[in-house]
Amino acid sequence: MASDIEIARAATLRPIRDVAAGIGLAEAAIEPHGHHIAKLSAATLADLAARPAGKLILVTAVNPTPAGEGKTTTTIGLADALNRIGRRAVIALREPSLGPVFGRKGGATGGGQAQVLPMEKINLHFTGDFHAITAAHNLLAAMIDNAIHFATAMPSGATINPRTVTWRRVMDMNDRALRQIVAGMGTGNHPLRETGFDITVASEVMAILCLASDLADLQARLARIRVAKDTAGNPVTAGDIGAAGAMAALLVDAMQPNLVQTIHGSAALIHGGPFANIAHGCNSVIATSAALALGEFAVTEAGFGADLGAEKFAHIKCRQAGLAPAAAVVVATVRALKYHGGMALADLGTSDAAALDRGLAVLARHVENLQSLGLPVAVAINAFASDTEAEQAQVLRHCRGTLGIPAHLCRHWADGPAGAEDLARSVAALADANADPHARFTPLYASGTDVLEALTIVATRIHRAGTVTLSAAAQKQLASLRAEGLTNLPVCLAKTPYSFTADERQRGAVSGHDLPIRELRLAAGAGFIVALAGDIATMPGLPKQPSALGIHLDEQGRIEGLS
Amino acid sequence: MASDIEIARAATLRPIRDVAAGIGLAEAAIEPHGHHIAKLSAATLADLAARPAGKLILVTAVNPTPAGEGKTTTTIGLADALNRIGRRAVIALREPSLGPVFGRKGGATGGGQAQVLPMEKINLHFTGDFHAITAAHNLLAAMIDNAIHFATAMPSGATINPRTVTWRRVMDMNDRALRQIVAGMGTGNHPLRETGFDITVASEVMAILCLASDLADLQARLARIRVAKDTAGNPVTAGDIGAAGAMAALLVDAMQPNLVQTIHGSAALIHGGPFANIAHGCNSVIATSAALALGEFAVTEAGFGADLGAEKFAHIKCRQAGLAPAAAVVVATVRALKYHGGMALADLGTSDAAALDRGLAVLARHVENLQSLGLPVAVAINAFASDTEAEQAQVLRHCRGTLGIPAHLCRHWADGPAGAEDLARSVAALADANADPHARFTPLYASGTDVLEALTIVATRIHRAGTVTLSAAAQKQLASLRAEGLTNLPVCLAKTPYSFTADERQRGAVSGHDLPIRELRLAAGAGFIVALAGDIATMPGLPKQPSALGIHLDEQGRIEGLS
Repeated sequence: MASDIEIARAATLRPIRDVAAGIGLAEAAIEPHGHHIAKLSAATLADLAARPAGKLILVTAVNPTPAGEGKTTTTIGLADALNRIGRRAVIALREPSLGPVFGRKGGATGGGQAQVLPMEKINLHFTGDFHAITAAHNLLAAMIDNAIHFATAMPSGATINPRTVTWRRVMDMNDRALRQIVAGMGTGNHPLRETGFDITVASEVMAILCLASDLADLQARLARIRVAKDTAGNPVTAGDIGAAGAMAALLVDAMQPNLVQTIHGSAALIHGGPFANIAHGCNSVIATSAALALGEFAVTEAGFGADLGAEKFAHIKCRQAGLAPAAAVVVATVRALKYHGGMALADLGTSDAAALDRGLAVLARHVENLQSLGLPVAVAINAFASDTEAEQAQVLRHCRGTLGIPAHLCRHWADGPAGAEDLARSVAALADANADPHARFTPLYASGTDVLEALTIVATRIHRAGTVTLSAAAQKQLASLRAEGLTNLPVCLAKTPYSFTADERQRGAVSGHDLPIRELRLAAGAGFIVALAGDIATMPGLPKQPSALGIHLDEQGRIEGLS
Repeated sequence: MASDIEIARAATLRPIRDVAAGIGLAEAAIEPHGHHIAKLSAATLADLAARPAGKLILVTAVNPTPAGEGKTTTTIGLADALNRIGRRAVIALREPSLGPVFGRKGGATGGGQAQVLPMEKINLHFTGDFHAITAAHNLLAAMIDNAIHFATAMPSGATINPRTVTWRRVMDMNDRALRQIVAGMGTGNHPLRETGFDITVASEVMAILCLASDLADLQARLARIRVAKDTAGNPVTAGDIGAAGAMAALLVDAMQPNLVQTIHGSAALIHGGPFANIAHGCNSVIATSAALALGEFAVTEAGFGADLGAEKFAHIKCRQAGLAPAAAVVVATVRALKYHGGMALADLGTSDAAALDRGLAVLARHVENLQSLGLPVAVAINAFASDTEAEQAQVLRHCRGTLGIPAHLCRHWADGPAGAEDLARSVAALADANADPHARFTPLYASGTDVLEALTIVATRIHRAGTVTLSAAAQKQLASLRAEGLTNLPVCLAKTPYSFTADERQRGAVSGHDLPIRELRLAAGAGFIVALAGDIATMPGLPKQPSALGIHLDEQGRIEGLS
């Protein structure tokens, strides 16, 4: 069977100006980056903002498993299929991070016949947006330590208290050795202090870029970032440091969404990429809004399982941007459901109706969660060659019968657009029937709700926890935020995606558990408070055998080994 | 007077495809990055390699001073003027680093009427080459620590000895707090060890990208990088770690030179950018070779003063790439010469013939050094409004009379191409008269010379030191390199550019001093040994008032404050 990169290479790419023309954008409306990638120009974005919007389709999934689900693949396949049945759909996806590309997971451009192209460029650097975010983030870090070094006065007249600095550095890499460091060693290099690096996709600058409505909003949000306190106890922001303007200057180009194409010719905007486990997990508001202006449907995804990804998509992104999804798709595979039902990875080739049934409880819960947000839901069963017909029938029966929602076997990975046509018709029908998505969309907590209450609602109603326990440190942080009147922000839960609990080993539809919160981090520029659950790390490590080991240039200078 | 950014904005840029057409490149030969920047395609580079080469003109300068010299400005002005007199010239420059842009020095795109455009994009990110280098460098670092973490066996069967790791990390930022760090703190994050960050322009990966002839050479050089020793004492390379292929994959696009234009329409290839104080200081061999294939003249510069920049240009870049300059230009200003003559910065508006005369000894020495390499030399006096006619005449008289070489007042900063026409005619005449530059070019030491001998030759004959003293650490490193038979590589001196000595405060034509070498670093992939002199830092710090403080977006989203 052909590998993803072989299929990608065999595809004939259209010039990106032709892809743009296909969605009504003239050559002058885009800024080419090579012949197959373009950025939407600033003028185009301004034009699109004035157009009527199409309908927003959210693709999400059951909790991820090592068996694979195919959320991105299904997002692409669904859009390809919508276009095939004559309903213009534009894709809005996140950009890949180099961490997973060189680590374990691989790239993020879909697979099989449902890929966005050119896959090598999208997976490696793309148009440099993540590098710009990294540079802006680290410029602020350097300017903070420099202000401490020179004892520069903040607007209050006081200097920065080095022990209060919360702003870390970032790198778009899995590098566990940088999680916790002592910086500023050596004569003349002070301040000597403990700090560390997160992966770029966990940066507040990434979140800000993805949530900002325009450059003015971007610069204003950057200025609000909290980084430390001064010696008089006043908060110190990036604006106080004098860094927000230069950070914004570094991000001007990165604020423009990137246009590419799928193997089967659909237009895709790929822009921004906060991880869903440790950040809010959605592509940029600007790109989603542009896709809505350009298509009858904008098909987007929210990272990882629906509990973690779709929840933050609803309460953070949609609410800040005034968006309301018209329908949601939950992606599942027979294999993943059996894994959730307790089977070992090595045994997934075997049929086990009871295990599959236990896994269906996980699927049912995600469907119920999405319905509780006011979203019509369809299920996409991403078919694998190893599935039996009986297993597939068991899943379809459960969805259509017990849950009473549309469900379809999808074969876009193998067959391209035709393979997801049934799903496309169902999704279009759900969205067509949802005449006023804004009226129907029902967040689980109101804007302005106290963060502890919001956290408790999300934990109990989405993750089905019985209790939420704050560590002593988190309690102290909460008290400090409360004293400043800053607890009326939405919560951004950072948690393992593999379980409803904070323990990745607990599979299945667990409920009544305790959700332990070890730390709260204010993201004043992004406009939320990150709650770190369990031992979730904001800087991943490489596995023993990283994917990087298999990547090289062949004799023609082509990249081999990307997946 | 209009600022550089105001002049840059007022200029009308031609579409980059028209600039390409002007040097004989079809639209298919380039890959656009926006409408005013392009990369030369891989196929174009292969085509150009087969063409006859033009003549190479090196622009260098007296030791830099806070008064400013205008080396890049003169490189651009000279090429503009050559084109004006009908001699096709293509510029080959280095890319700017974000460190100086946000630190003290500002951008690196020239000034006044002699600028490369679009200045904001070139100074900020450009086409992402430096970010790619940063990522490739840091991927290797993460893979080294990961191999130690998992006790992965090297080809010898032994594991990496963590205490021997010499590979640091890099960031394209001035960030003194990262110079020296302890990484790997915290449970599960080992190895715990002392390390640090250099600025990206000091990375061996930067040097490799600038010296590699093609992608195959790139990948092979990356594999040769030395990073540590194993527990049995064997050297460990990036190839042994399994990182070279993935690093090369990250650098594929970065290996293609970037095409832009000057305000007055000359074509400029801007590619690569090792600092000249802490690295070898020249733009890429690929870009210089392409400029030679595309122009009658390729006009390039070597970083900082001629002692540090031109020396490494000759002994490292030219020798590795088989290049020979046909002529050299030394840029000086009356102000800089008076500063070298001992005047205080604040007094440079005053005439002082004796101080200027002492400064002329510095200029004379640089001219003599370049002549000793077999290069015909001209002097460019970059005119400032504050110069008196008597001062300018004193400099011209010294050059033309005492030194017997062409010298011209240049007004390209204010007047554009016409302002450097005299210089252009002289330089063209020197190059025309140099019928066989390869025969005339005479490196000061032969390839394969022992590095200590090479260092001594450079120190005594170029920097006019009386002695070279190796620290105990450097002596130990030398002994270790000698034991491995690796001392037959050229030396890459890392030293302050402000003085012939290792002490930046010692201005003027100092001689007979001691050059203290504190460390030797093998760069086996780049093919040289870095000798760190005095207290030169491979990671700069920000000044008390960094340039970043003055940069912001205006209400139209335009970048203000870049210089």
